[in-house]
Amino acid sequence: MGIVRVYCEDVMSEVLRVGVAGLGTVGAETVRLLRLRREDLARRAGRPIELVAVSARDRSKDRGVDLAGVAWEDDAVALARRDDVDLVCELIGGSEGPARTLVETALSAGKSVVTANKALLAHHGTALAKTAEAGGVTLAYEAAVAGGIPIIRALRQGLVANSIGRVYGILNGTCNYILSAMRDTGRAFDDVLAEAQELGYAEADPSFDVDGIDAAHKLSLLAALVFGREVDFDGVHIEGIRPISPLDIAYAEEFGFRIKLLGIAEEAPEGVRQRVHPCMVRKDAPIAQVEGVFNAVVAEGDAVGTTLFLGRGAGAGPTASAVIGDIVDVAAGRRAPVFGIAAAELRAARPAPMEALEGRYYVRLMVIDRPGVLADVTAILRDEHVSMESMLQQGRDPMEKVPVALTTHEVDEASMRRALDKIARLDAVLEPPAMIRIVEL
Amino acid sequence: MGIVRVYCEDVMSEVLRVGVAGLGTVGAETVRLLRLRREDLARRAGRPIELVAVSARDRSKDRGVDLAGVAWEDDAVALARRDDVDLVCELIGGSEGPARTLVETALSAGKSVVTANKALLAHHGTALAKTAEAGGVTLAYEAAVAGGIPIIRALRQGLVANSIGRVYGILNGTCNYILSAMRDTGRAFDDVLAEAQELGYAEADPSFDVDGIDAAHKLSLLAALVFGREVDFDGVHIEGIRPISPLDIAYAEEFGFRIKLLGIAEEAPEGVRQRVHPCMVRKDAPIAQVEGVFNAVVAEGDAVGTTLFLGRGAGAGPTASAVIGDIVDVAAGRRAPVFGIAAAELRAARPAPMEALEGRYYVRLMVIDRPGVLADVTAILRDEHVSMESMLQQGRDPMEKVPVALTTHEVDEASMRRALDKIARLDAVLEPPAMIRIVEL
Repeated sequence: MGIVRVYCEDVMSEVLRVGVAGLGTVGAETVRLLRLRREDLARRAGRPIELVAVSARDRSKDRGVDLAGVAWEDDAVALARRDDVDLVCELIGGSEGPARTLVETALSAGKSVVTANKALLAHHGTALAKTAEAGGVTLAYEAAVAGGIPIIRALRQGLVANSIGRVYGILNGTCNYILSAMRDTGRAFDDVLAEAQELGYAEADPSFDVDGIDAAHKLSLLAALVFGREVDFDGVHIEGIRPISPLDIAYAEEFGFRIKLLGIAEEAPEGVRQRVHPCMVRKDAPIAQVEGVFNAVVAEGDAVGTTLFLGRGAGAGPTASAVIGDIVDVAAGRRAPVFGIAAAELRAARPAPMEALEGRYYVRLMVIDRPGVLADVTAILRDEHVSMESMLQQGRDPMEKVPVALTTHEVDEASMRRALDKIARLDAVLEPPAMIRIVEL
Repeated sequence: MGIVRVYCEDVMSEVLRVGVAGLGTVGAETVRLLRLRREDLARRAGRPIELVAVSARDRSKDRGVDLAGVAWEDDAVALARRDDVDLVCELIGGSEGPARTLVETALSAGKSVVTANKALLAHHGTALAKTAEAGGVTLAYEAAVAGGIPIIRALRQGLVANSIGRVYGILNGTCNYILSAMRDTGRAFDDVLAEAQELGYAEADPSFDVDGIDAAHKLSLLAALVFGREVDFDGVHIEGIRPISPLDIAYAEEFGFRIKLLGIAEEAPEGVRQRVHPCMVRKDAPIAQVEGVFNAVVAEGDAVGTTLFLGRGAGAGPTASAVIGDIVDVAAGRRAPVFGIAAAELRAARPAPMEALEGRYYVRLMVIDRPGVLADVTAILRDEHVSMESMLQQGRDPMEKVPVALTTHEVDEASMRRALDKIARLDAVLEPPAMIRIVEL
C-alpha cells in the first residue's frame, strides 16, 4: 500500500482550486459556505479548497457574498480554460447553451465538474460520463437529484451490495407542496399554484415542475445509476399534476389513499419502466407522510430491504450543501464512476412500455345521474376484463351532473385505457374520465 | 492530474483480497453476497473483490454458503497476519477479546478493516482510528450504526458542508419493536419482550438492547463524527425502556405524543450532550411514524435543514449490505478519515451534563385519590419553579390508587429532578414517579 500513501500525501498538500459558474441563490450560497466553512472543509477534505474564479451575467449585482480576490469571467466557458481552476462548479442550469458548453469544455480539459443541473444530465448524461472518464476526472451531481438528500452517494456506494428492484420518490417539492396544500385547504390547483408562485415555491412558468418534467429529469438519473443503463430521459412516461381536482383528493381520502406525484423506476420483464405521474398511495405508507416542499427517495434492495431518504429537495442551502459535499469528495480523491459503473459498460436503455404495466386504478367520472349509466360503465369494464374493487356515488341529483369514483383490482394498463376510451364516449359521461394509478409501496 | 490516473489504473487492476472473521448470520450473508454479486461488485468497485479466507469457531457447521477454495483459520487473529489478505472484515462482535485483537492487529499490519462492531468502536474508536491512520489504512463501520442505512457516508461525505447542531435517531430496532407492539396491543413490557424473544427480535439476554446500551454505542459514534470529538461512550446518559408502562403509552396518545427510545447528540453551551432515553415526541413528527424494527436517523444541518434516513437497523441482509458497501469503497480507493477528520485533530470529549438540559417533561404519579394530594404536588412544582402545562386525572376512585399525569413547560432538569424527589416522598404518592422527557423535533 506504499504507493497509495505517497499519492494521498502528495495530493493532500495541494489546494483544490474551484471556479463557480452561476451566482444565483445556489451559487451565492455555495460561495458563502465555501468561505464560512473554509477551515472545517479543509480538515474534512484533507486539503484546502479555495474559490479562485466565478462567472455570472451581472457583475454589478449585490449577492451578499464577498468576492474580493476572486477572478471574474464574463464568459462562463472561460472558467474551464483557466489554468488556475481544478474544478468547475456549474450552477447555470439548462440542458443546452453555456451550461452544456462549460461542462463539456471543463471535462475535456481534465477538470472535474460538480453540477446541480438535472436537465443537462438527463439529456446528455451518458455522453458527459464518457467525456469525464476519458479525461480521468469526476462529474458529480448529488445536487441534481433531491436537493440536499445525499441519495446519489447512498445508491452508488452505500447500497452497492444490493440488487435494487425499484427506486421511487417525491422528486419535486413544488408539486408536493401544491398537492399538500390542496389537501389541507380543499382548494383547486390553479388557486394553490398562484399562492405557491407568490411564496416563491413555484416559478412564474411552472411547467417544468407541475408537468412532471423536472421529476422526470431526476428519475432518469436515478434509473441509470440503479439499473446500470444509459440515461434515458426520453423513455420516461410523464404526467403532471394539473388534472388533479379537489374531488379526487377527497375521494382519495375516502378510499384510504393520498395523492402524490411520484417518479418510479422499476425493473420489468420488458426492460426498465420509468414513470412520473400522480399516484394514489396508502395513507400509512412512509412516503405518504412526506408533506410540503420535502423530497423523499425510497430504494428497495434485496439485501437491505426498504430504505427511505428524506430532506429538502430545493433551495439555496440544501442545494449548496450537496454541491459542497461533491467538491469535498473531489478534494479528498474519492471518485466513483458517474453512473456507478464505467460509462462504456452501461447497457443500452430498454424502456418498458406503460401499456404492459399491471396495477390498480382509481377512476372518477362526471355523469348524468340517470338510470342505466352505471350499468353501461360496468359493462364496458367487464368487456375489457377490468375487475372493479369498489365504487362510490355519494349523494343523488337526478338528471344533474354527479361524480362517480371507483377503484379496480389489478389489470394491465392497455385494457384500462381501452375501457376509459369507451367510457369517455358514453353520452352520459360529461367530462374526460380522471384516472390515477394506485401504487403499492 | 496525470499521477491520479496512473495510480488508479494501477490499483484497479489488482484483486482486493478479503478475509471474513465471524460466520454468524451477518458473516454468512456477507460471504453469500460477495459471491452472488461478484461480477457486479467488480464493475462497481473497478476491480475484483475476492474472498480468500474466513474464520469462525465451528468448522463443521453448515452455514448454507460455499466456502470451497477459501482458507480457514481457527484463530481469527491469524487472518490479520496472512499475506494474502488485504482487508479484514470483523464480524465477531464484542468490545474486547478476539474482535479487538483482530482489528488492532490488522490495522497495525497495514490492512484495512470493515466492521459492524459498535461496542468495539464505542470503547476504543479514537485509539483504533489513530492506529488506522498511522498504518495508512481504512477503518470502516457503516454497518455498526443503523444497520443498512448508509448514515456514516451521509454524515461524513454528503452533509459535510453543514454545521450539524443535533443528530438523533431510533438506533435500536428491538426497543422500537417493543414500544410499537406495546402501543398496538396495550400489553406490558415483559409480555411484549417475551414475544419479541420468541420471534427473534430480541436476544435471550435483552439487556444490551432494552437498557439502551446498544443505542448508546451507536450514538457515541454519530456524535464523534458530527461534532469532531473523540468517541465518548462514557459520556452518554443512558436510560432504557423497561420502566415504560402501558399507562404511559396511553397518556402519551392523550397528550398527542408517541414514546420512542431516541439517541440524541446535540451541541450545548457546556459541550456535547449525548443521551439515550425514552422520549415523548409529537405524533406528527416524521420519526414518530417509524414503527417496528426500523431504524431512523435525523440530522439537522444549518444548510440542508432536516434530513431523515430510514431503513432496517439489524438483520443479516441489511448489515451485510452495509459491510459490502464499505468493502467496495476500500476496493475503489475511496477513503475518508474514520471520524471525518484526522484522529489527532478530534477535540477532547466534553460531555454536557444532563442537569443543565432545558426541556419539557411528562410525569405520571400513582396517588391515593384523596383531597389535598394534588395541592401538595403542585406546591412542590411551584417551589422548584416547574411550570405545569397540563394535568390529567381521569376517573375517580376515592381512597384508592389512581394515576395522575402532567406535562410541564420548559424547565431545567436539575429543578425537575429535585421536584420529583420531593414528590416521591409524599405519603400519598405510592410509586416512584414516572418521568419521560418531551423532545421537540
